[in-house]
Amino acid sequence: MAGSSFGNIFRVTTWGESHGAGIGAVVDGCPAGLPLCEADIQQYLNRRKPGQSRFSTPRKEDDQVEILSGLFEGRTTGTPISMIVHNKTQRSQDYSEIASYYRPGHADYTYDCKYGFRDYRGGGRSSGRETIGRVAGGAVAAKMLAEIGVTFTTYTRAIGPVTAQSFDADEIFRNPLYMPDREAAEQARDYLNRCMKETDSSGGIIECVVEHLPAGLGDPVFEKLSANLAKAVCSVGAVKGFEIGDGFAAAEARGSENNDPFRTDDDGRIFKASNHAGGVLGGISDGSSLIFRAAVKPTPSIFSPQQTVNTSGEEITCRIKGRHDPVIVPRAVVVIESMAALVIADALLGGMAATMEHVKKIWG
Amino acid sequence: MAGSSFGNIFRVTTWGESHGAGIGAVVDGCPAGLPLCEADIQQYLNRRKPGQSRFSTPRKEDDQVEILSGLFEGRTTGTPISMIVHNKTQRSQDYSEIASYYRPGHADYTYDCKYGFRDYRGGGRSSGRETIGRVAGGAVAAKMLAEIGVTFTTYTRAIGPVTAQSFDADEIFRNPLYMPDREAAEQARDYLNRCMKETDSSGGIIECVVEHLPAGLGDPVFEKLSANLAKAVCSVGAVKGFEIGDGFAAAEARGSENNDPFRTDDDGRIFKASNHAGGVLGGISDGSSLIFRAAVKPTPSIFSPQQTVNTSGEEITCRIKGRHDPVIVPRAVVVIESMAALVIADALLGGMAATMEHVKKIWG
Amino acid sequence: MAGSSFGNIFRVTTWGESHGAGIGAVVDGCPAGLPLCEADIQQYLNRRKPGQSRFSTPRKEDDQVEILSGLFEGRTTGTPISMIVHNKTQRSQDYSEIASYYRPGHADYTYDCKYGFRDYRGGGRSSGRETIGRVAGGAVAAKMLAEIGVTFTTYTRAIGPVTAQSFDADEIFRNPLYMPDREAAEQARDYLNRCMKETDSSGGIIECVVEHLPAGLGDPVFEKLSANLAKAVCSVGAVKGFEIGDGFAAAEARGSENNDPFRTDDDGRIFKASNHAGGVLGGISDGSSLIFRAAVKPTPSIFSPQQTVNTSGEEITCRIKGRHDPVIVPRAVVVIESMAALVIADALLGGMAATMEHVKKIWG
Amino acid sequence: MAGSSFGNIFRVTTWGESHGAGIGAVVDGCPAGLPLCEADIQQYLNRRKPGQSRFSTPRKEDDQVEILSGLFEGRTTGTPISMIVHNKTQRSQDYSEIASYYRPGHADYTYDCKYGFRDYRGGGRSSGRETIGRVAGGAVAAKMLAEIGVTFTTYTRAIGPVTAQSFDADEIFRNPLYMPDREAAEQARDYLNRCMKETDSSGGIIECVVEHLPAGLGDPVFEKLSANLAKAVCSVGAVKGFEIGDGFAAAEARGSENNDPFRTDDDGRIFKASNHAGGVLGGISDGSSLIFRAAVKPTPSIFSPQQTVNTSGEEITCRIKGRHDPVIVPRAVVVIESMAALVIADALLGGMAATMEHVKKIWG
Repeated sequence: MAGSSFGNIFRVTTWGESHGAGIGAVVDGCPAGLPLCEADIQQYLNRRKPGQSRFSTPRKEDDQVEILSGLFEGRTTGTPISMIVHNKTQRSQDYSEIASYYRPGHADYTYDCKYGFRDYRGGGRSSGRETIGRVAGGAVAAKMLAEIGVTFTTYTRAIGPVTAQSFDADEIFRNPLYMPDREAAEQARDYLNRCMKETDSSGGIIECVVEHLPAGLGDPVFEKLSANLAKAVCSVGAVKGFEIGDGFAAAEARGSENNDPFRTDDDGRIFKASNHAGGVLGGISDGSSLIFRAAVKPTPSIFSPQQTVNTSGEEITCRIKGRHDPVIVPRAVVVIESMAALVIADALLGGMAATMEHVKKIWG
Repeated sequence: MAGSSFGNIFRVTTWGESHGAGIGAVVDGCPAGLPLCEADIQQYLNRRKPGQSRFSTPRKEDDQVEILSGLFEGRTTGTPISMIVHNKTQRSQDYSEIASYYRPGHADYTYDCKYGFRDYRGGGRSSGRETIGRVAGGAVAAKMLAEIGVTFTTYTRAIGPVTAQSFDADEIFRNPLYMPDREAAEQARDYLNRCMKETDSSGGIIECVVEHLPAGLGDPVFEKLSANLAKAVCSVGAVKGFEIGDGFAAAEARGSENNDPFRTDDDGRIFKASNHAGGVLGGISDGSSLIFRAAVKPTPSIFSPQQTVNTSGEEITCRIKGRHDPVIVPRAVVVIESMAALVIADALLGGMAATMEHVKKIWG
Repeated sequence: MAGSSFGNIFRVTTWGESHGAGIGAVVDGCPAGLPLCEADIQQYLNRRKPGQSRFSTPRKEDDQVEILSGLFEGRTTGTPISMIVHNKTQRSQDYSEIASYYRPGHADYTYDCKYGFRDYRGGGRSSGRETIGRVAGGAVAAKMLAEIGVTFTTYTRAIGPVTAQSFDADEIFRNPLYMPDREAAEQARDYLNRCMKETDSSGGIIECVVEHLPAGLGDPVFEKLSANLAKAVCSVGAVKGFEIGDGFAAAEARGSENNDPFRTDDDGRIFKASNHAGGVLGGISDGSSLIFRAAVKPTPSIFSPQQTVNTSGEEITCRIKGRHDPVIVPRAVVVIESMAALVIADALLGGMAATMEHVKKIWG
Repeated sequence: MAGSSFGNIFRVTTWGESHGAGIGAVVDGCPAGLPLCEADIQQYLNRRKPGQSRFSTPRKEDDQVEILSGLFEGRTTGTPISMIVHNKTQRSQDYSEIASYYRPGHADYTYDCKYGFRDYRGGGRSSGRETIGRVAGGAVAAKMLAEIGVTFTTYTRAIGPVTAQSFDADEIFRNPLYMPDREAAEQARDYLNRCMKETDSSGGIIECVVEHLPAGLGDPVFEKLSANLAKAVCSVGAVKGFEIGDGFAAAEARGSENNDPFRTDDDGRIFKASNHAGGVLGGISDGSSLIFRAAVKPTPSIFSPQQTVNTSGEEITCRIKGRHDPVIVPRAVVVIESMAALVIADALLGGMAATMEHVKKIWG
């Protein structure tokens, strides 16, 4: 089935493998008249670039985006925006061995089950490089959302057992782990050094806060904003969990604690006095900040020997070579933000047709 | 936007409000030739029925399903299966007051924001009764999946702070909380009694295990099986979190712990020696059991006085009347199972076209 | 595959067979706040009712619609509008024989090929009664479009060889054939009388004119307004052809004849001096009237003996019993109009997100 | 709205403008294991190339396709197949004038209405070059269909008033107009010479015959094979009409003439003794040849002076410069075939899930 498109009205379609010609994204349904240039996309892509710290793979990936269509005189035309990032540092020789066995924690085995064979070079379509397409698409969505004031703050909340205890937005871009707490960032750095020394890897948690979102986005029942965020987030390679607001902690809470009282501000505007819900009620945005988290598993590629099976069905011990991040969480931060932007852009455009009042405002 | 359909190939569309004529579901895309009758659906619906213990609302809801189309001589014909459950015990008088204010933790406020007004009777479309449509659709999906041997075991894993410590499948249907651990079920009962006494409510966690699923279901990138499960689960009213396999615990784990080694059994079949992944690799089913969890928030309707705002924008104290479950987790167990069945049915049918070998097997 | 839904944003899902419990439609994505009642739907359904002249089957079908959801205090709530028309005059005895053979021109054979068996009672899902769901959905769409001034004029342009030569809108509802030309209507009546006498049937052409449509509806490439109209129209049972504007005549024309010159009116508004295009340029509405036609084949159920094959594969001569229209064109007029309304409603709502200017008008 | 994707399971997404970097197509949902190479695509693209006769524009367009993803060792992997054709001969200077006015018969005006501005260079996204994406996608679909024996024969049936009177399949590729009748091709050539001399253009009719299609493809109600063909065909730029089988002629026919009798052949297989229906009954393929036609309007770009309006709203006389085909029908032949292949590929893959028997054959 066609599984590489996301969104109904604002829709991104991505393509490309780790060792093919490149990775691309086609954004269709972006409203006309949005100022957009390659730098808008590049700024997002740079945040997922490797090689920015010793905790990400030292591979050099230029990852320069080229916009091939959909712009005219610096603005979107309403037609598909095609973007490509050429693969420049394909080193198939590094990966030739993995053709012969199934790496634990990777999709090698399931691709073979599904398709009968697989492009084993660098993981093919299941490579982390696939997320370039998500980020390119998300960058366009975020640019559109910025026009009506919606902002995103996304960061590493935890690396393994180390969780940020404080929040300083400025700190996020000051440390290579994108943590909002300098002290926690230092502890996480030490933890990752230990992981690397032990040829092991670490997971972590990413948190995203979306502010200035209009109330009323998302639809009842299946197309809840929270449901689409859950899908978006859990579609990212290594994500094993999603929660919004208090999330799993809400399962232990009482109703009297978890309900957010409504209040009015000095201008008579309704707001919630707390935000256990994380910005949605009944799956629809409630005007407070949207807050959600993604649980990211440890990088499956570790240098320690592992038990596995080769494609002939023999049990073997494998040792994965090559260069791999001991943690992918920091690089995944912008991927999660991009997916959120895609979901919200789609909900925002879809929400335009929610009432006859809106319909008449445009067409009446 | 049209938000009441779920699935691409096996698709359910639901409709209906708490106090309208009824709740319905239309299942489109079910293969022809599946034996199906109302009892198949009713058996599922009965599991979400209230009034089965003192922890669920004493409202009498018959919830008898009627199949209106799509069957001929006891089998599905391949055309839409329309099902209806008539609303019999509508008591609008109970709900007249809530027209005037926004109940904390409910969708009253967001519906007003989105649509300009709302059907306030019993919560309208945002009522828990909406899940009848999901369960009716899920029952059809589960019946189809049973034909190729796929089975579901779904249960309450935790009620508030009480978590099941052991697993006895037979116990699940022996206690009204659907817990697989008798002792935990008793503790949970005590906990809920305390909540009720304190006019409060509790959340909990639901766990679902799917067995005998073929490997290779789900698609790379956006249509991962895990991503669609996340959406399905988080689209259910009170769900605030989703995790698959080790989920959030994986974020704290090392790669060496989290990776599942591959092995071969005596027949040379490949299997995973552990299942931290919860049955998916790269978002595609790997042949082991699918295991996921949903975090359910405490019932927002509590009898304690709460701070809120009325529709005129005045801050008030409200006291919600009527009859409400102190916990919705047990009744939501079958809803989660139904959503899982819908996701898997869709992935199973979509997966038929994954290879040319399959294509030739059908059309060659 | 799920084939009973139409539309992306304004979406109708229909269900039901000729001899099941009823025929239904679920309209999802209708904006909230639209005044709507059963009479709005009934007025449309009445136009497809049989028994209004001797050229339509004398079967009595009440076809009273009931709205089951989606309304509150006389207005749409934004949630699914479920409608049902109960089947009251099922006479399975009339149809028992057709279980044994394949009626020429009907879907009996292809349903058996596709599904392995079929609901042979009255044609099951392939019965003309299926169009009740389309008309119910189309009535909602037309009601919404009327709010911004869009109007439909649909009529019989030709019955067999008799084509309307003049156009008098008032005449359409004065003759049972819905022709805009009284003289042609009389000739068509005579022609149909001959067809009936010869136990034969006739085809015809339906024309639809949509006025006061905003310019700019429809999308480039695959989602052209004209493309979706073509699909909508050709999805109706007996339709074998579609053309917009000059249609097939344009194939014989020169560019100098077929191009419509642009002009400006006294208020400086741009208009087309002619309308060979039929209201679309590049598949997008151009502000002039939308004009398209549907070619309807002769009713396949004729009383003359026909050569066919029975389900055992033997060649036989069949004589179809029961009551059948010698022409279905007049009853199909409102079906074509309904499909057009569904297409336009979807394009209108989708078009709201076409520009950043629109986005800011709603959300800025 | 996202309008540049076509198909549900086998889905193509196209992008690109006349004067951008290139034109591209992403095919998602193609089954894994299909042998495919650039030559397969190029062969199709060559059929729409200009410059092959004096009746097509003398512009040199290399139109060499490059496959960027989705293949491994000569076979499709099941992941998106991205294809690009670079635009090499962009000559923006030719088109600078048309920025200032609306060309009759073109989408200039409607794009401005919809999007507020337009990429006027060569018509931007509304250029005929857009069809490169369709053909690239269609070539993949046709390659897949060829694997199970489905074949396409597509040709020019009429140029202006000249219609092919005989059918010789070999003749189609022998004359530059792709007509199956040599004599008609010569008359058409003379007719086009007259058109050119008079600085005018001509329309025409394309016919497509699909053979060896399995019976049972297409779905009841909205997703009829014929409905999707109608949409596919009418989504092509200059198409103003679609008909299947006898099409508009059926509207004038009697039932006794139009119904196709069923017969059995010597092997007991059921077939239709005639094919007025054009290969579908109830919108589902019936095992006979699929036959449909597209009406193509005359090229709107003519060298004769035309009345129009400039973007300031002044009435002017325009004279379109540049190089333009006096007829686009021959080059559109392969575009129509490509669209048919896309529709059928999607129906074929979707039809795999039609019965429980199929489901068990794959998963049982």
